[in-house]
Amino acid sequence: MKIILFGSSGTLGSAVQAALTESGHEVIGVSRSEGQRADMRERSSLRELYKRVGTFDAVASAAGEVAFGPLAELGAEQWEKSLASKLMGQIQLVQEAIPFISERGSFTLISGVLSHDPIPHGVAATMVNRGIEGFVAAAAIALPKLLRINVVSPTLLEESAADYAGVFPGFVPVPARLAAQAYLKSILGAQTGQTYRV
Amino acid sequence: MKIILFGSSGTLGSAVQAALTESGHEVIGVSRSEGQRADMRERSSLRELYKRVGTFDAVASAAGEVAFGPLAELGAEQWEKSLASKLMGQIQLVQEAIPFISERGSFTLISGVLSHDPIPHGVAATMVNRGIEGFVAAAAIALPKLLRINVVSPTLLEESAADYAGVFPGFVPVPARLAAQAYLKSILGAQTGQTYRV
Repeated sequence: MKIILFGSSGTLGSAVQAALTESGHEVIGVSRSEGQRADMRERSSLRELYKRVGTFDAVASAAGEVAFGPLAELGAEQWEKSLASKLMGQIQLVQEAIPFISERGSFTLISGVLSHDPIPHGVAATMVNRGIEGFVAAAAIALPKLLRINVVSPTLLEESAADYAGVFPGFVPVPARLAAQAYLKSILGAQTGQTYRV
Repeated sequence: MKIILFGSSGTLGSAVQAALTESGHEVIGVSRSEGQRADMRERSSLRELYKRVGTFDAVASAAGEVAFGPLAELGAEQWEKSLASKLMGQIQLVQEAIPFISERGSFTLISGVLSHDPIPHGVAATMVNRGIEGFVAAAAIALPKLLRINVVSPTLLEESAADYAGVFPGFVPVPARLAAQAYLKSILGAQTGQTYRV
């Protein structure tokens, strides 16, 4: 299977790429700085990427930023950044792929633990994550070509837990290779419209 | 209690206004065309409204638009319209009210049945509604001044069911006066972070 993976240079993305490659699949890594370059915030950049790649069976995302901070300090700029990247960026990478992706192909997006387990500085993250989960639930019954779509909602990763010391009290981290398995379930399985909490 | 109500001229908003007035509360109705005028899409318009009103105990919203259509036809403009109005418009009307609203005051927003019960042409609605519910869950633990926040998720209303004939098969409509009761539970009760499905 040929899989386009956004965010392939990140902690989780690297683990997803490794797990898929070990299973014998071809992964085309995409980031803003490495491999196939594309900016998920720009529809034209996505269209060019998909045209370049030609044919593929799945698109997966471990990419997208959101702003963190006290509610009073989340101004227009912080909201716009969050909406453009993790929310609309992921929606756009689905929409723009539809003409190119193989029939019965799949999409796997990323949300995150804050969607159902909020922290005070993570209001934008909870909003964006929940929005992505909603998009996936609805797109599952709206996609053409028998396409499937799921979303992986990982908790804190062991590999990056030290960077967030004190921010997620009592959130038990998981290794990235475990979270990566949810991507394999989505890409290689048959389910659609699911949110996989890891 | 003095309550600012966005969308007071709509089917649901009128019923909320009636229920609150019958309970002896003062309602300041806001719409783009009637009563106190304000545009929820513009932070400056919201700030001016709140300054004009001066002091108030609650802000409620029965307002906000989203685009409907096949996934392939939801282009940048349709998404922007949906994000600016029902999603960011409601987030902004909360954020901008914080300096003005009374301590222990409350916010009551609106999502809708599509957040958990999608239809093929309602992908943007499901995404926006789910995002608003996420915002409310997180804002409940992030708001200052002991402020509370809840969201009402009404199903199809009896009063507008005929306008949507065939769009919501098997969705059982409720009268607007029933959905209005969820606003009273939020505004006059003590709960926070809740999604009230009606």
